[in-house]
Amino acid sequence: MTPRPRAVVVVTGSELVRGERTDLNGPFLARELLSHGFEPARIVIVGDGEEELADALREGLEAEVCVVSGGLGPTHDDRTIELLARAAGRELHLDPRLEEEIGGVSRRFAERMGRPYTDFESGVQKQATLPEGALSLGLAGTAPGVVLALDGRIAVALPGPPGELQRLWPRALETEPFRRMLERARPPERRVLRFYGASESAIAKALADAGGEAPGVEATICARDFEIHVDLVVDPGAEGGADELERAFLPPIERYLFSRDERPVEEVVLGLCRERRLTLATAESCTGGLVAARLTSVPGSSDVFVGGVVAYSNDVKRRELGVSEETLEAHGAVSEEAAAAMAEGARERLGVDVAVSVTGVAGPGGGTEAKPVGLVHLHAVGPDGARSVSFSVPSDRESIRRRAAIAALHLVRRLLAQSRDSRV
Amino acid sequence: MTPRPRAVVVVTGSELVRGERTDLNGPFLARELLSHGFEPARIVIVGDGEEELADALREGLEAEVCVVSGGLGPTHDDRTIELLARAAGRELHLDPRLEEEIGGVSRRFAERMGRPYTDFESGVQKQATLPEGALSLGLAGTAPGVVLALDGRIAVALPGPPGELQRLWPRALETEPFRRMLERARPPERRVLRFYGASESAIAKALADAGGEAPGVEATICARDFEIHVDLVVDPGAEGGADELERAFLPPIERYLFSRDERPVEEVVLGLCRERRLTLATAESCTGGLVAARLTSVPGSSDVFVGGVVAYSNDVKRRELGVSEETLEAHGAVSEEAAAAMAEGARERLGVDVAVSVTGVAGPGGGTEAKPVGLVHLHAVGPDGARSVSFSVPSDRESIRRRAAIAALHLVRRLLAQSRDSRV
Repeated sequence: MTPRPRAVVVVTGSELVRGERTDLNGPFLARELLSHGFEPARIVIVGDGEEELADALREGLEAEVCVVSGGLGPTHDDRTIELLARAAGRELHLDPRLEEEIGGVSRRFAERMGRPYTDFESGVQKQATLPEGALSLGLAGTAPGVVLALDGRIAVALPGPPGELQRLWPRALETEPFRRMLERARPPERRVLRFYGASESAIAKALADAGGEAPGVEATICARDFEIHVDLVVDPGAEGGADELERAFLPPIERYLFSRDERPVEEVVLGLCRERRLTLATAESCTGGLVAARLTSVPGSSDVFVGGVVAYSNDVKRRELGVSEETLEAHGAVSEEAAAAMAEGARERLGVDVAVSVTGVAGPGGGTEAKPVGLVHLHAVGPDGARSVSFSVPSDRESIRRRAAIAALHLVRRLLAQSRDSRV
Repeated sequence: MTPRPRAVVVVTGSELVRGERTDLNGPFLARELLSHGFEPARIVIVGDGEEELADALREGLEAEVCVVSGGLGPTHDDRTIELLARAAGRELHLDPRLEEEIGGVSRRFAERMGRPYTDFESGVQKQATLPEGALSLGLAGTAPGVVLALDGRIAVALPGPPGELQRLWPRALETEPFRRMLERARPPERRVLRFYGASESAIAKALADAGGEAPGVEATICARDFEIHVDLVVDPGAEGGADELERAFLPPIERYLFSRDERPVEEVVLGLCRERRLTLATAESCTGGLVAARLTSVPGSSDVFVGGVVAYSNDVKRRELGVSEETLEAHGAVSEEAAAAMAEGARERLGVDVAVSVTGVAGPGGGTEAKPVGLVHLHAVGPDGARSVSFSVPSDRESIRRRAAIAALHLVRRLLAQSRDSRV
């Protein structure tokens, strides 16, 4: 089978190459390119220095598709268009219609800022100057996105701010030169299997025992946020092989599978509650609101999730969740007993059907021999009973908290899935 | 002044070049390299395909320092060492001491997994095979980190998992060849100024009006999470110029400056409370726990932050925060009045000195003409009075929530800074 056309992403920005900010455009464009049937071969991040950017663009133009992010601004530091023209061997021309369009935006901006338009004039001319044959995709601020068709290849220049880049990208796909390029592409099917509770090596072993990848099926196993994600990238025509692979490798690990689409666990939990018209609340100590924040990140979560208590101090655990002084004294705030009392308290006080609690030692201080940093107790309670789990994984504060939050969501999922199964 | 030695980071991983996971190693290494006086010139992300990785390594070895992340595993897909040797023109040799070390780890692993050691033998030999003259930095799992001194240049290969990479990186800096390289480096001083409440263009204008960058002082202005961060990278000897630049450009924007170190606003807020021995609580609706989660992300926050209520439903706003039915009926849950009642309720119910509340329309649904998506009301109340703020910025759900959470923290900061100033 012919390989997918090769694609390169060039990202420019001094703050990106210096690691002061994490680039989001490269991963976004890579996912988009793959989903449209191109092979993302490299993502190159460079600063705004002329030589480095020129080199990156020259290499990028060797690929069938080169997408460049950033460097479209009005100042002399923004060199993408000039260097793209040079790398492509195209003359630069001032586009009078574009000059008028950008001029209009700049005039309004100058007025608002109370500055003379002449301050902006050279910037407008710079931004209205494009390589011969380039198509404008419309403006992001005053910067035009650009598509440039080359001999059997294509270059796209997009603005650096991720929101603007994501807004103009679909327009690039709709241009005539890009549509011709898309005819040569081979969009794969992507299947995402998400597991929780199994180790990465157990999943890898199941895959290997099933004979490994099938022809035209690439499998990547990736531990992310304490879940294991298996991505199958399936070439057109290889769907049957992918089905067979799934049938062979899933049985020993199927009980850990919780999502076959890209729904994160918080969406799965909200869906399980919604199915049964159950309301949900949280009671968090060491996660400090992370569980509630994940649940409420989902649009429409308010029909299930009513709220929660972040009970960081013992006083708030007593006042707001009704955890008894005796429980706290006998077992401590980080205990199975306190976790159970917190969840039950939240269920009663907030008047919900299902509640989940987290209490633990997030560190770096506060650990003891009996209760070390990384010790976490979780408890979920619903109309059909309760489930609890404890674990102790020494790690850094952020990882412990994130891991505990994800474990809390999975605990609710298992509580509800179990009840559902037992009713079948 | 001579330029800093050039450094290139090569990151390998199929899931990274396909955008399935965001690379963290490139930014980490870039920051480290710059802080040690090298100029991070490019970060290249490639998959595990032989040709792409070989090209990236060949280009990387043209730099004074090339750091490679990933591709050190035991399987044939892990090609970093083999291709590094080829790019450097070095033979590969099996290192018997290293073979013994890796073999020991693998034997223990095989035992734990109940698998024969012979399954691992070829992987052990592969991982114990290094380019001539390479130094092992010790193992991450079964993968050795490696330093390879070349003629006036140096290459470092580190494992892909960020925790492992960050653990072995300091060992690379301590090797003899790297120490020699560090003598040629020019560590800059980095000054970080963080602003809130001013626009990026206002900060840029203040900098331009002050004459712009000084010789040996590079300034980057970067909008991040609704704050504006100005980074000054100051060459050795240019400290005086940087001081002068700060004196010239700060006065018109000084009231927006909230941090001169890298402390995020949540740390500043906790610090202000701690100074005055004040306790703090949160009452959140649309942010759903994000404010509490940010505060509790700081180690030791428990001496200030006692907890919070995520009051997502009106019922929880009434029950847990004592917001009156009248307020909710007359003004709605998204109103200045509800925000004030939530903050006051949290202050009273949770028994704290300072409380902050957030209520708003995070969208995408639920907006009306009078209360559109993006409308947020915030209220902070403390021993010396209260402050409130409202804004309406149409955006996506995640941005609205993040922006509201950050605005809430800054509102507390301004409330406390104001009280402090008024006491002087």
